[in-house]
Amino acid sequence: MAIIEIVMGSDSDLKVMSKAAATLEKLGLDFEMSIISAHREPDVFYDFAKNAKARGVKVIIAGAGMAAHLPGMCAAIFPLPVIGIPLSGKNLEGVDALYSILQMPPGIPVATVAIDGGVNAAILAARILAVSDEEIANRLDAYVLEMKETIQGKDAKLKNVGYKSYDK
Amino acid sequence: MAIIEIVMGSDSDLKVMSKAAATLEKLGLDFEMSIISAHREPDVFYDFAKNAKARGVKVIIAGAGMAAHLPGMCAAIFPLPVIGIPLSGKNLEGVDALYSILQMPPGIPVATVAIDGGVNAAILAARILAVSDEEIANRLDAYVLEMKETIQGKDAKLKNVGYKSYDK
Amino acid sequence: MAIIEIVMGSDSDLKVMSKAAATLEKLGLDFEMSIISAHREPDVFYDFAKNAKARGVKVIIAGAGMAAHLPGMCAAIFPLPVIGIPLSGKNLEGVDALYSILQMPPGIPVATVAIDGGVNAAILAARILAVSDEEIANRLDAYVLEMKETIQGKDAKLKNVGYKSYDK
Amino acid sequence: MAIIEIVMGSDSDLKVMSKAAATLEKLGLDFEMSIISAHREPDVFYDFAKNAKARGVKVIIAGAGMAAHLPGMCAAIFPLPVIGIPLSGKNLEGVDALYSILQMPPGIPVATVAIDGGVNAAILAARILAVSDEEIANRLDAYVLEMKETIQGKDAKLKNVGYKSYDK
Amino acid sequence: MAIIEIVMGSDSDLKVMSKAAATLEKLGLDFEMSIISAHREPDVFYDFAKNAKARGVKVIIAGAGMAAHLPGMCAAIFPLPVIGIPLSGKNLEGVDALYSILQMPPGIPVATVAIDGGVNAAILAARILAVSDEEIANRLDAYVLEMKETIQGKDAKLKNVGYKSYDK
Amino acid sequence: MAIIEIVMGSDSDLKVMSKAAATLEKLGLDFEMSIISAHREPDVFYDFAKNAKARGVKVIIAGAGMAAHLPGMCAAIFPLPVIGIPLSGKNLEGVDALYSILQMPPGIPVATVAIDGGVNAAILAARILAVSDEEIANRLDAYVLEMKETIQGKDAKLKNVGYKSYDK
Amino acid sequence: MAIIEIVMGSDSDLKVMSKAAATLEKLGLDFEMSIISAHREPDVFYDFAKNAKARGVKVIIAGAGMAAHLPGMCAAIFPLPVIGIPLSGKNLEGVDALYSILQMPPGIPVATVAIDGGVNAAILAARILAVSDEEIANRLDAYVLEMKETIQGKDAKLKNVGYKSYDK
Amino acid sequence: MAIIEIVMGSDSDLKVMSKAAATLEKLGLDFEMSIISAHREPDVFYDFAKNAKARGVKVIIAGAGMAAHLPGMCAAIFPLPVIGIPLSGKNLEGVDALYSILQMPPGIPVATVAIDGGVNAAILAARILAVSDEEIANRLDAYVLEMKETIQGKDAKLKNVGYKSYDK
Repeated sequence: MAIIEIVMGSDSDLKVMSKAAATLEKLGLDFEMSIISAHREPDVFYDFAKNAKARGVKVIIAGAGMAAHLPGMCAAIFPLPVIGIPLSGKNLEGVDALYSILQMPPGIPVATVAIDGGVNAAILAARILAVSDEEIANRLDAYVLEMKETIQGKDAKLKNVGYKSYDK
Repeated sequence: MAIIEIVMGSDSDLKVMSKAAATLEKLGLDFEMSIISAHREPDVFYDFAKNAKARGVKVIIAGAGMAAHLPGMCAAIFPLPVIGIPLSGKNLEGVDALYSILQMPPGIPVATVAIDGGVNAAILAARILAVSDEEIANRLDAYVLEMKETIQGKDAKLKNVGYKSYDK
Repeated sequence: MAIIEIVMGSDSDLKVMSKAAATLEKLGLDFEMSIISAHREPDVFYDFAKNAKARGVKVIIAGAGMAAHLPGMCAAIFPLPVIGIPLSGKNLEGVDALYSILQMPPGIPVATVAIDGGVNAAILAARILAVSDEEIANRLDAYVLEMKETIQGKDAKLKNVGYKSYDK
Repeated sequence: MAIIEIVMGSDSDLKVMSKAAATLEKLGLDFEMSIISAHREPDVFYDFAKNAKARGVKVIIAGAGMAAHLPGMCAAIFPLPVIGIPLSGKNLEGVDALYSILQMPPGIPVATVAIDGGVNAAILAARILAVSDEEIANRLDAYVLEMKETIQGKDAKLKNVGYKSYDK
Repeated sequence: MAIIEIVMGSDSDLKVMSKAAATLEKLGLDFEMSIISAHREPDVFYDFAKNAKARGVKVIIAGAGMAAHLPGMCAAIFPLPVIGIPLSGKNLEGVDALYSILQMPPGIPVATVAIDGGVNAAILAARILAVSDEEIANRLDAYVLEMKETIQGKDAKLKNVGYKSYDK
Repeated sequence: MAIIEIVMGSDSDLKVMSKAAATLEKLGLDFEMSIISAHREPDVFYDFAKNAKARGVKVIIAGAGMAAHLPGMCAAIFPLPVIGIPLSGKNLEGVDALYSILQMPPGIPVATVAIDGGVNAAILAARILAVSDEEIANRLDAYVLEMKETIQGKDAKLKNVGYKSYDK
Repeated sequence: MAIIEIVMGSDSDLKVMSKAAATLEKLGLDFEMSIISAHREPDVFYDFAKNAKARGVKVIIAGAGMAAHLPGMCAAIFPLPVIGIPLSGKNLEGVDALYSILQMPPGIPVATVAIDGGVNAAILAARILAVSDEEIANRLDAYVLEMKETIQGKDAKLKNVGYKSYDK
Repeated sequence: MAIIEIVMGSDSDLKVMSKAAATLEKLGLDFEMSIISAHREPDVFYDFAKNAKARGVKVIIAGAGMAAHLPGMCAAIFPLPVIGIPLSGKNLEGVDALYSILQMPPGIPVATVAIDGGVNAAILAARILAVSDEEIANRLDAYVLEMKETIQGKDAKLKNVGYKSYDK
């Protein structure tokens, strides 16, 4: 039973949403991944959102572009945290999706992360679960330590080889 | 039986939406006016949108601010024209609502009018009905003539009194 | 006799406008497609817009980029619905065209769709005609059903092959 | 012992942050409220963020305007969920704060809510705690029901008195 | 016979357009001032623009807000310089009008001045006429000299009384 | 002796500025083309702008990107019309240059054309000269006629071959 | 002899520029304050900027709104640090001034501070002087300590009286 | 001992930051270059910023993208000038970084340069040091002279070969 649901409205969103999936896998967290459109199959979507909690879902990660209604409509129906990822498209660089996800009216929040922020959506989901799960908190500590060591390795390399020879 | 439905998510939207209502009244068109929130009562909203066509509604005029999902969700469920009015709020001057309403994905259009454009939503609804109703077309012609005469009166007044004495 | 007129100011707009044409064809709706510039041949344009209704046109779909005056000037002369498509260009990502089309003054609405939204302009035209034509309404229902089945197929495929093997 | 910490960098932020506090009180959730500046007292801030988890804090709600670093720096040090509220100021309508809070790099998420979204920050904190606390989930259900009934009351009033007599 | 035509689409534009008129008066240049709408009376507008050159008009100053088509449509019909003033409105701070006026396609330029820039439109018209009229050039030189002396007087005052006592 | 001066601050601006030059050539107008930087050689620039009128220059066309001061500083020193072309760069799509050129304070106008609008700058210069030169006015009439015939040719081609076979 | 020059193009800029002056006074730093316009008196301006270093000026603080050329033109002529303050105006919230000041081409930097950031311009000037003046560095340390104590006092007050009774 | 510290949060920032380094080298100024993240290793970052002055650093150049906290957090801890470079990323063209760096609250300034402005950050650092070091001032004078001669060479070339043959 997946405790995290990753949902998107189109398979064109998979590039970013896969980063969320890969990060959850790295942290050892179970998830389900679905393509469901609030616009193109509203009845399917309603059932999906309505039943999510009963199916054991604790957090929904919803990504959407343009007039991105999916995260907000999830938050209107599913009573636990919904994380929204604004996806950039051909025009407007994701600002359209950002405003459509972020600017929810009082009472119905979506926890919005950076534009195309697939990794951060997964980390935020893990932090939410870590509130009541010390094992997940420990995995996040290890993740943070790894980030720190990676940065320190890059700094050492830069100081060693100099900026002209530094090869990413 | 109303053929035009004016819907908004909050009574704070009434200031603009009332302009749509007043314009429809001026054109002699029947309408119903409702406060229904896709975010705060999604089940009520679904029934409303699902049954609108059967109730005789031909056009929905939906106004919303911020992450304005109401027009797009209407368009996802109601199969006839949906006109969206982006409403300006405390911040962002309505650009958040504009993007949330306008940038619908292929297949689910919302006919978007100007920010806070209550009058134009009503005129657009009348034009849509005028496609198959010559009587409404005639009323629109009269409305356009009246606008023309008003402008011509202002031009005459300006030329008569001069810009320093012109009193709006 | 075409009941829908697709008009653009330049052949550089054809890429998006052809999507509108193809969608109308898919729905079995007759249309005429013209290249007419309100800026470069204003007299030709006026005659075109003035005579459109008499020629049987019920809806105009007008696409334009930059300081996009074509949709608004159509709406000033042609008394039935005008659908505007803001086209993105080299700079500004279509926001210039969007504001030029959307922000019409009270009394002269343009039904604006998404930036580069050729498909949605066609669907909106069909919805407008469906108000008084049940046959078109039925074709739109079939179109919506097809969208739903496509999404459901993608969801099934994703659940079957997993996100790492999903090949768009 | 407070499980939610509300923090801001200046007392000029109190107007919005008090909405978060009032909403938490309405939901019966304990919180502490602090004025701490990451810019003006970085050492005090570091100790605050470093010790928050040990003091029992489960969620931090951080509001900030302009180059809003407070939420992101909390998220860099405190390992559990950080909710960021972008605050609007004299210029830029909160877009500066929004980008400063939202656009966090991979690995360090801030759960961003609407500009000036004090209420939603509190509701999001409650949803996060509700993941593992059924009692809080129940209070949220009651809150949602109350929102629904309020909207339904407004709709009934509008239909009863009409838009011209509706008095907010 | 006026050689400069000041035109606007609505008397709500008079506040800014009057600054243009007052500046022309100060420079001793004859002008006519008209309220003519390209949207609400397109036939009146066409005649106006078509006949302007024959009536002796050398430069048109056109101000408009929102989807500001008036300057561009003037430039499409009138073959001499058209100066456009983007007017700010309730929302968008004049950016909608700016893009609608500025972003004209190749071949049909509008000489755009600052948002709400009534004075500069008049000065630009005078500079255009000064190309072939030394008397107007001399008046402009005097205008520039007066600006210089005004600034120098303010600088002297500031140095004399200090910033705390400076009373604008 | 050139009556039009085309000036830019860097040879990276040549791509757009060459369009202005080519258009002036097409219209048979003499021009000089210079690379002069107000930022990198302010003394050279001052002399250039100060002496331009005495050298016979009637109109300056100045193009600049980023914090585009060149057009505005020309207008501060040269007393006849200055046409500014905002140039797009790596970031911001020319909006930085647009605001730097357009938003001149009262008294010192720049006639701003579209972003990267090299052709329109030249046409505007020709219109300015046409105010007192009927021969140039005639050439502009021919230019407009050519534009009209080009558009009509494209419309005929589209109607002849259809949108699927239309080959730009 | 003043080592800091505060310059603005208009007395309408005094409200923000006075904050810079007051902050310099608080830090005990000498300054001169001038109203000089690069647009309205370019020759006066050139002399001013050209002679500033010889007059002993070490840092220029220049504030400007709209197409704000003053800071950049100072930086083009004066060889030591120039600090630019973008000033907000009637429209665009200072973004026009920001881009005009910030986006300087390579080689001619302006040290830009926040929109309307008078205080920070002064603090930055002091930091620049503190690089080679330990006494100024000490005064800045005291300034920072005072900010810290002010914040701590506000935090204590909030914890003492609670958010409902907190009176700014 | 380096008197200038160039710091960035990721090696993906090296492309722009290397321009700062190369410019400092050209001017003969010593610098250290580090990769340190305020988000991913806040304790390392604090020590770095806290000790910088004692290590002899006079100016910090900090570059960052997205929610760019590095420059502002440096300015909160390091008491001498901090120069911030907003870096453009995949979306938003650097506006997110710009606002995160520029809009610092009163008391904690960051000297912000153009988006991706690596060269200007270095020149600004040199100008700051030149306040008390005549030798560096002389090198800057030579740098400015070289820029002037380069422009003059380009102008001569353009006048020699013409715009059609000019080969950058």
